[in-house]
Amino acid sequence: MSSGTKSSIDAANQQALERIFASRPFLVDVRPAHELLPQLGDHSVLHAGPPLGSKTMCGPLYGAILGALQYEGWAADEAAAQSLIEADKITLLPCHSVRAVGPMTGIITPSMPLMVVENREYGNHAYATLNEGLGKVLRFGANDESVLQRLQWLQQVVAPALQAALQRTDGLDLRVIMAKALLMGDEMHQRNVAATSLLIRALMPHLVRAAPASEYLGEITDYLTGNDQFFLNVAMAAAKATMDAATGIPGCTLVTAMARNGTDFGVRIGALGERWFTAPVQMPKGLYFPGFSAQDANPDIGDSAIVEALGLGAFAMAASPTVANFVGAGGLAQARRYTEEMMEITVGRSPHLLLPTLEGMGVPTGIDVRRVVETGIVPWINTGIAHRRAGVGQIGAGVVQAPLDCFVQALEAFADDWDR
Amino acid sequence: MSSGTKSSIDAANQQALERIFASRPFLVDVRPAHELLPQLGDHSVLHAGPPLGSKTMCGPLYGAILGALQYEGWAADEAAAQSLIEADKITLLPCHSVRAVGPMTGIITPSMPLMVVENREYGNHAYATLNEGLGKVLRFGANDESVLQRLQWLQQVVAPALQAALQRTDGLDLRVIMAKALLMGDEMHQRNVAATSLLIRALMPHLVRAAPASEYLGEITDYLTGNDQFFLNVAMAAAKATMDAATGIPGCTLVTAMARNGTDFGVRIGALGERWFTAPVQMPKGLYFPGFSAQDANPDIGDSAIVEALGLGAFAMAASPTVANFVGAGGLAQARRYTEEMMEITVGRSPHLLLPTLEGMGVPTGIDVRRVVETGIVPWINTGIAHRRAGVGQIGAGVVQAPLDCFVQALEAFADDWDR
Repeated sequence: MSSGTKSSIDAANQQALERIFASRPFLVDVRPAHELLPQLGDHSVLHAGPPLGSKTMCGPLYGAILGALQYEGWAADEAAAQSLIEADKITLLPCHSVRAVGPMTGIITPSMPLMVVENREYGNHAYATLNEGLGKVLRFGANDESVLQRLQWLQQVVAPALQAALQRTDGLDLRVIMAKALLMGDEMHQRNVAATSLLIRALMPHLVRAAPASEYLGEITDYLTGNDQFFLNVAMAAAKATMDAATGIPGCTLVTAMARNGTDFGVRIGALGERWFTAPVQMPKGLYFPGFSAQDANPDIGDSAIVEALGLGAFAMAASPTVANFVGAGGLAQARRYTEEMMEITVGRSPHLLLPTLEGMGVPTGIDVRRVVETGIVPWINTGIAHRRAGVGQIGAGVVQAPLDCFVQALEAFADDWDR
Repeated sequence: MSSGTKSSIDAANQQALERIFASRPFLVDVRPAHELLPQLGDHSVLHAGPPLGSKTMCGPLYGAILGALQYEGWAADEAAAQSLIEADKITLLPCHSVRAVGPMTGIITPSMPLMVVENREYGNHAYATLNEGLGKVLRFGANDESVLQRLQWLQQVVAPALQAALQRTDGLDLRVIMAKALLMGDEMHQRNVAATSLLIRALMPHLVRAAPASEYLGEITDYLTGNDQFFLNVAMAAAKATMDAATGIPGCTLVTAMARNGTDFGVRIGALGERWFTAPVQMPKGLYFPGFSAQDANPDIGDSAIVEALGLGAFAMAASPTVANFVGAGGLAQARRYTEEMMEITVGRSPHLLLPTLEGMGVPTGIDVRRVVETGIVPWINTGIAHRRAGVGQIGAGVVQAPLDCFVQALEAFADDWDR
């Protein structure tokens, strides 16, 4: 590329970075998906990652879809749900296609409540499901009666109370919560204990007033306080609302989304809007719960890598020596190395999201596909590990690398587009 | 001392350390001081630090006592309160004399609610007031109508609700909360945001059930969620319950308490039980709120240095680069130096309270007066800074050093006692 080209790309990237850093995501509402996304019709199912196309679904994704079809009442049992899929009677779309994100299988159907994050600087919104908690959950492909009952309870009990509580607020400033949580050891992918706790503190005064006489207040409080990862989905929606503000800038080579459907890893870049560049996903490496090993693991899956696109997760590993241990990466020195390596492929440092163990440096933000391709350094992603068989659930946590080929394709497409 | 003496002192210190590390402090109750401490009679006032003796009280302590006498109804107004003091009609005792601790002025009178921490390993209990929050508060010597009303509200509204909530629990395991909070950037003296948040998460499910229909649930929730330093008093009681388990061991030269009354700094050591060794307090050095300077500062005051005796606060500064900034000490490298210096005068490393920024090393615990005297290195203490005039309140935060002379006296007394 000519130096003129380079400087205009750099300027476009700078503009994208400024929009990322100026973004102010607020948690403002919880509402049923069909109210927020009228395009979600009958038999519509959203899933994590790029479009599946004709690719075979992985086990957990298939299991989660079977559950979702029953949860919606579109199928009376698993056999009926299988028939619907086999008869091609369902419409599968990526969550990202409607500005939503979901962890692991990422399933969203019309009745599910979604959290609404508003980017107050630019007016755009992003959506994410409520975190189901640990154990048997749809996001890991579980679909038995207990899973479906819990989804009903989230819809009928938790969501209306959270909606009422949030309506009493002016919205909760997520950038502030995320900045504080980074100072408290969260990287906001595998560790959200601080962010979850801070969110609960912000929410409880409103929740107890919004539902003071509710017989359900106790169990809703159990739900909120009992799950350290509650904030993961919030962080994902905040990252989505932020990164969406940086899409569609001509000449921008920064990554605006990374997502995995269990088969393919997909990347989007600023200049090319909603177009995906995909390559087969990798296997995560990490630590397994007792009784499980790498042989049981599903390939990498989930929209959660949107937090890495913003500079959190593995990019912010320096904030979380305890996560570095948890994902098998070990200790502060090692944790710093992840962050330092990601500095090689990013063009900015957040002025808001600061790393206490790196003398207050901002998290590395703005993955430039040019740098990825030039250096061969690909993004690290912190991730939960699902069993490859539907219904088993989480079996570990680790790190995974994005496949280089997505970035190569994105850069080639960018160059083609630029030449035209 | 002979080598035989040295080895038996070392053995005694080791025994004390083991008792400190085996201690399991649980928050179990909130009850009025007069129920817990029947020895607190009419006109009894507990204060922070060692006994005042004939020393002149500092401004904030005097102001706080004036307020407390009115809060108890022993004096109708400030003039009447002054008369009571001048006529020597009040009984002043250190909080420590009844196994209690209070931050800053540390005032406790019979009607005040106290948190009860039980050391489940040894069965002993320790007590601390509820944190009043920021702004005008008795612990900084403020005593106007708003201060007294808030104390009444804590007594009548907050305390019964917390008592009812705690009765629904099996007690809250404070060692677990403190260990987690250290991994989240708290040193539990000047920074308690994580520990407070974790305690709230543990308490809220019980609070909403204990007082589900209470019209006060909203304001109690505001109180708990609105004060990052709520946990300070809890940490103090946990430290007191822990260090008390290590007192009275013949031959033990470890510090079991450090406390300041605004005039004198006092130290206790294991072998000599409840005896205090005192020297004039120092002035804290730190950062001041806008409009205030070192000239406005009161000398060092409060029982809160009990957390340093356990290895928290300045001893755990490595956990809190943000506190190092807040108290004027600056950055991770500087924060580590405080902790590393305190390693010079301590004989143990906690197996439970670990420092993520020092590769998981335990906090330095067990201050050996021999080492303090040999090296001349005195304990650092993180502290809030009170205005020297009663009623103004907190004007900053910083670090302060314990006066060497306390430790010299303690070691001399120990040697005298040992020779006998």
